[in-house]
Amino acid sequence: MEKITSTQNPVIRRLKALKDAKERTATGLFLVEGEVMIKEALKCGLNPIEALFENESALIDALRKSGANVHLVSRNALEAACDTKTPQGCVCAFTMPRKTALPEESMKIVALDAVQDPGNVGTIWRTADAAGFDAVIFGEGCADAYSPKVQRAAMGSGFRVPAVHGKLTEMLPAYIKGGASLIVSALDGSDLYARSPIAKDKMMILVIGNEAKGVSKEVQALSNVRLKIPMRGGAESLNAAVAAGILMYELTK
Amino acid sequence: MEKITSTQNPVIRRLKALKDAKERTATGLFLVEGEVMIKEALKCGLNPIEALFENESALIDALRKSGANVHLVSRNALEAACDTKTPQGCVCAFTMPRKTALPEESMKIVALDAVQDPGNVGTIWRTADAAGFDAVIFGEGCADAYSPKVQRAAMGSGFRVPAVHGKLTEMLPAYIKGGASLIVSALDGSDLYARSPIAKDKMMILVIGNEAKGVSKEVQALSNVRLKIPMRGGAESLNAAVAAGILMYELTK
Repeated sequence: MEKITSTQNPVIRRLKALKDAKERTATGLFLVEGEVMIKEALKCGLNPIEALFENESALIDALRKSGANVHLVSRNALEAACDTKTPQGCVCAFTMPRKTALPEESMKIVALDAVQDPGNVGTIWRTADAAGFDAVIFGEGCADAYSPKVQRAAMGSGFRVPAVHGKLTEMLPAYIKGGASLIVSALDGSDLYARSPIAKDKMMILVIGNEAKGVSKEVQALSNVRLKIPMRGGAESLNAAVAAGILMYELTK
Repeated sequence: MEKITSTQNPVIRRLKALKDAKERTATGLFLVEGEVMIKEALKCGLNPIEALFENESALIDALRKSGANVHLVSRNALEAACDTKTPQGCVCAFTMPRKTALPEESMKIVALDAVQDPGNVGTIWRTADAAGFDAVIFGEGCADAYSPKVQRAAMGSGFRVPAVHGKLTEMLPAYIKGGASLIVSALDGSDLYARSPIAKDKMMILVIGNEAKGVSKEVQALSNVRLKIPMRGGAESLNAAVAAGILMYELTK
């Protein structure tokens, strides 16, 4: 198999273009870098389309069996297509597993309300997986779920925990009518550790708000549980991903 | 007052040099950017040495009263001295408040064992402040406590919660002898939510380990409480700052 060495080769340009959110939306594809993450994506049943490898690897066969086009490429061609500065030797475009409705029988949900930092979004996704949540709802104004930075911070949880995209003010009312607890953190909320019990047999939707502005007024207005993580020292707030982690574990322990 | 416009001016070069950890150690100074953070540092009693402002500001008087040299500078000169790409209009070198011993009567301590990511270190510092911890011990191999990235992530908590530097294996035994609980997270630890009670009237030292390797064997060997945050889904681990947040709040609620 001949190595692709030009960064202008159509294959390289096609994968490189997926660093751009518009191109990801147009094609329905996103990039996964490195053998560990590509293996994990395959294990989670994601559909590989096209991959670049710097060297021969047993993983190439597995990808071809799953129907992917695989190309051997030079280091500079690989670097052109990858998001990291020093990529790990391979990259693969997969079909995005994004959904527009929650999986059936979902009980524990995290909803992101304009969480903008890709590291925070990916870290919350990873924590949702660890804490046993069933899905992450991406409301408007969030970092793109399939950006390389979000997926790197999610460390594979982005393949396992479904991402559902929608407008929160349109999606959430139906669940609330169905008995869901819609939980927001608010400065005037009850102390998290002195809260009234939250029904365990109903759906629980925990909303994490924007890093600077918190949860939007529109979503606050829909909420039926308002909680506050106590601030005991001089800090006025917590990092969004840390707050999400404390709430997810405390509410489901 | 004449504006400094050259990036080669000795004042600019002196502040710019503080982006480098060696220079910070040699001078005992570190940079704080932006009016909000500079005000917070003054409020916390930190000692300002030299500042650059793009425009006149009431804060200039306050800094001069505290003994700082203040210079008006052009945008390009300011950018040369700052760590952020689009600085907020001012930067000030302060004396680093690092200590070599814990504050007296400390009860709740976080110890960082080679936590390398500056964002994680700063975020843990911020969370320690919010959760009411008394100090953060920086063991060997951690991100530099006074790097601009760490301080930005700490959001002012770096001025409030004392940073103590030392070698963990040398510092910790004395506290353990004194009755301190030395808590590590370990894969073979007890479930955090089914743990044996931890003495509330003794010092509690929570160790957060390196992002990839966890807590070192040497510190594990010193520990007397081993806990595990349950992993309920497919994720194998949590982000270090998220794990630290869950543990700090759960252990002190």
